[in-house]
Amino acid sequence: MVPPLYPDYPPELSSAQEQYLLSNLKDWSIAHGLAVRPAPSFVPTSQDPSGALATTAPVTLFPSLFPRACFEEALAIQKAYNELYSAIARDEEWLQAIVEELIGIDDFVGKLWQTHLEVKREGYVQDLSLGLFRSDYMVHSEPSTASPSIGLKQVEFNTIASSFGGLSSQVSILHNYLLTIDAYPVSATTILRKSSLAPSDSSSSLAKGLAAAHSAYGSPRTSHPMCVLFIVQDPERNVFDQRHLEYALLAEGGVRSFRLPFHRTLLDTRLEADRTLVYVPPSIPSAAYEVTTVYFRAGYSPDDYPRTEDWRARFHLERSRAIKCPSILTHLAGCKKIQQVLATPHSPHLKQFLPEDNVASRVLATFAPIYPLDESQAGIEARKLATDPESASRYVLKPQREGGGNNIYRKAIPLFLESLPEKSWPAYILMEMIEPPVLKNAILRNGEVQRGGVIGELGVYGVCLWRNGSGGDAGEVLQNWEAGYLLRTKGNQSEEGGVAAGFGAVDSCCLVDA
Amino acid sequence: MVPPLYPDYPPELSSAQEQYLLSNLKDWSIAHGLAVRPAPSFVPTSQDPSGALATTAPVTLFPSLFPRACFEEALAIQKAYNELYSAIARDEEWLQAIVEELIGIDDFVGKLWQTHLEVKREGYVQDLSLGLFRSDYMVHSEPSTASPSIGLKQVEFNTIASSFGGLSSQVSILHNYLLTIDAYPVSATTILRKSSLAPSDSSSSLAKGLAAAHSAYGSPRTSHPMCVLFIVQDPERNVFDQRHLEYALLAEGGVRSFRLPFHRTLLDTRLEADRTLVYVPPSIPSAAYEVTTVYFRAGYSPDDYPRTEDWRARFHLERSRAIKCPSILTHLAGCKKIQQVLATPHSPHLKQFLPEDNVASRVLATFAPIYPLDESQAGIEARKLATDPESASRYVLKPQREGGGNNIYRKAIPLFLESLPEKSWPAYILMEMIEPPVLKNAILRNGEVQRGGVIGELGVYGVCLWRNGSGGDAGEVLQNWEAGYLLRTKGNQSEEGGVAAGFGAVDSCCLVDA
Repeated sequence: MVPPLYPDYPPELSSAQEQYLLSNLKDWSIAHGLAVRPAPSFVPTSQDPSGALATTAPVTLFPSLFPRACFEEALAIQKAYNELYSAIARDEEWLQAIVEELIGIDDFVGKLWQTHLEVKREGYVQDLSLGLFRSDYMVHSEPSTASPSIGLKQVEFNTIASSFGGLSSQVSILHNYLLTIDAYPVSATTILRKSSLAPSDSSSSLAKGLAAAHSAYGSPRTSHPMCVLFIVQDPERNVFDQRHLEYALLAEGGVRSFRLPFHRTLLDTRLEADRTLVYVPPSIPSAAYEVTTVYFRAGYSPDDYPRTEDWRARFHLERSRAIKCPSILTHLAGCKKIQQVLATPHSPHLKQFLPEDNVASRVLATFAPIYPLDESQAGIEARKLATDPESASRYVLKPQREGGGNNIYRKAIPLFLESLPEKSWPAYILMEMIEPPVLKNAILRNGEVQRGGVIGELGVYGVCLWRNGSGGDAGEVLQNWEAGYLLRTKGNQSEEGGVAAGFGAVDSCCLVDA
Repeated sequence: MVPPLYPDYPPELSSAQEQYLLSNLKDWSIAHGLAVRPAPSFVPTSQDPSGALATTAPVTLFPSLFPRACFEEALAIQKAYNELYSAIARDEEWLQAIVEELIGIDDFVGKLWQTHLEVKREGYVQDLSLGLFRSDYMVHSEPSTASPSIGLKQVEFNTIASSFGGLSSQVSILHNYLLTIDAYPVSATTILRKSSLAPSDSSSSLAKGLAAAHSAYGSPRTSHPMCVLFIVQDPERNVFDQRHLEYALLAEGGVRSFRLPFHRTLLDTRLEADRTLVYVPPSIPSAAYEVTTVYFRAGYSPDDYPRTEDWRARFHLERSRAIKCPSILTHLAGCKKIQQVLATPHSPHLKQFLPEDNVASRVLATFAPIYPLDESQAGIEARKLATDPESASRYVLKPQREGGGNNIYRKAIPLFLESLPEKSWPAYILMEMIEPPVLKNAILRNGEVQRGGVIGELGVYGVCLWRNGSGGDAGEVLQNWEAGYLLRTKGNQSEEGGVAAGFGAVDSCCLVDA
């Protein structure tokens, strides 16, 4: 475990030290867009109806310690993970077998699948797909063994709307800046030094992914200028995170983009006869743009589909000629069920997608055991584990859903399952809890500093652009790179890690030898 | 005049256009630090005691039209203005004659002068001075003549705490960005196009000035690392403006700086026996920095000196070995009285400081007539003008003070003078009103858009580093450059133009042929 080696990290701050650190942190963050729109609990909407105020994004005062070997391994295997999920998204038959188990018990998955089938009947006109992925890990320690060891265990793999790539770049620069201006006590600098700080180029690197898709789209089908479309929620408190990608896409890639609230999709876009997607900005009704790439920062949750039109909008985008980031098949590849099928002990599936043994074994090593709750042999075993309060305390129950807020933890599992008709159980997967080392840090949120035990979750971004192929043609990966990282840190009292959900903070890694 | 040529500028916006422009403006500004801490009227201190919230700095939606010839002339003569004020600051005898007229009627000027004399008795140990100047102009139109002509007239010359250089660079980039993303209607683009937008490199260029002084300071006298000290007010709503200079100084010049609230000067700095200025950050009591350059962003107003210690603090800094930006003599050179002495019709003084006729004549052309209110011949004439409501309506009465909020305008002058003992009249100067063309624009402030007639004030920054010399040695200018510009725009209903005082907005120039 990490902490015993570094019990004095982070160092205590005198009042003057804390004031210096905080005033510099608060000014730097606003000057560099490490910001969010304030929560209504901080600034009521009635006070700022037009949304002119902003505040520092929840952020740690210090970069958290992270084992260097785990960090390096996580980055090193990202290309294999990109390859894996691209291969899954291209294997419709395999996906179908799994997704069909969920249809009827998970309405959202069912509707996505139907939408895909509807487009398939007509025939897809775009053979390229883009993934801006994020693979999330925790450091897992095995304190029970004689010589405690640590390793990287995957929490989840995000195939849609992977967030915080924009802010993550900024927070790694912030912590570096604070070190430069001596905001960290000298006593800490044996651990906290320039060579230990890990920069994240996620903002620029993800934007490069969008630019690659934009360019791979090829020649325009219309006479309109071309653009990338960010499909967004509205309002969006985490808007600056997305804006940093837009700015990088324009400044570094020379590519125009527009933000389209998902619920306006059918109002502001149309399909030409050849299904070229055309965006007509409400601000310039006389103009029109040919959309090369649709980047979803919305549409990942059933909450985004309150109306029938919203499913028509998703269908409309899916059947268009634009490259989707992600396509529905890629979106579905992010189901927890897929993660479970890959990670159930003795699963044969990983090998099928990653034929090289040395690659597959490194990916496999990051899987925490995950079980289905269906009527398979593994499922029957898992049901025993989940309904017994004693054994359940080592597990977390997760729905297929992306994003935080829906998980059931440990001893709450048996009661929760009892309240659920047994036929709905297969909508959940049972995952062995990862037991990360509890570190210390301080988090600034809404101007207040919270201190205490924290746990960190490392997300590694990946960009993958591929050709889907069809029939005997299995398609191919065209672009594949690791695209920086995110460290999210939350109080160890909270079981959820979503920063946007209000639980966590953005952080950066101070690498240490564990 | 400008407006008749461009009656349709800025263009009307549809509701969708305005929403697009504003949402992009509000996000971009926070993402790039074009921000201020909100006014207490917007966010009460009790709601955000730690100062975590920020909002877009008051800013115009469109770059305001500005005559290209006037803009180019203002920039072109900045080096001559730097030369002029450096020469004045070096001519103590000449300054003394003028300042002595003010002593006894302007307590603040008197105390500055005494502080200078006290240091002089002991002997200055630093021969270098730095000026980060800003010369402010309005376009003046002469509608009364047969063929109306426009020209540049100086409002004032700032020798201390010239602000908005940090934000000005950002606003010129913002307007350029808004043009790039088609936030401006196509109908406007005959006027508003890339080649018309004037960038301002003030942030970087002023930081370069501080770095030049830091470097010219030479070898350290102590074993401490060296730094620049920003003397600031506390709290400071306009902190991001200053921070941009700090960040540029560090990133581009590699120079460390600290912010020292003026009232803490005696607590956090000390003089070594040879008067080397040493700063001990309260956050690192065990550390110490040798201060090469003291940059005043406070201390320009009597309000900054509520206690006797504050004058001791100014004395303490002035007698130190650090390069002052500005020295007290340079600060005093910014008195309105100096401007008046130079600009009183038929004044012989300008020639003395700018011997080259072609240089002096261009500077002279920017002077609006200014009169003393003393008992000289010019003063007696001016008193007649100022006490007659009819003629007074063409003038503004200004105290020696820097910064807005203290001027008396037009018909209010006679009554004001009546309320003042006649012996205090020489503390004011009488200046012919500059009659700028009234343009149209829209200003975003606290999330609300205000529309209407506006007038603009162009400030040109200048950096000047010089050696003062002494005795027969008249010193010399070592560095001298024009350092970007500021356009401040205010409603034409307001007679004051200070953005910080809450009246104006930061703007950038869209250059047009007038």
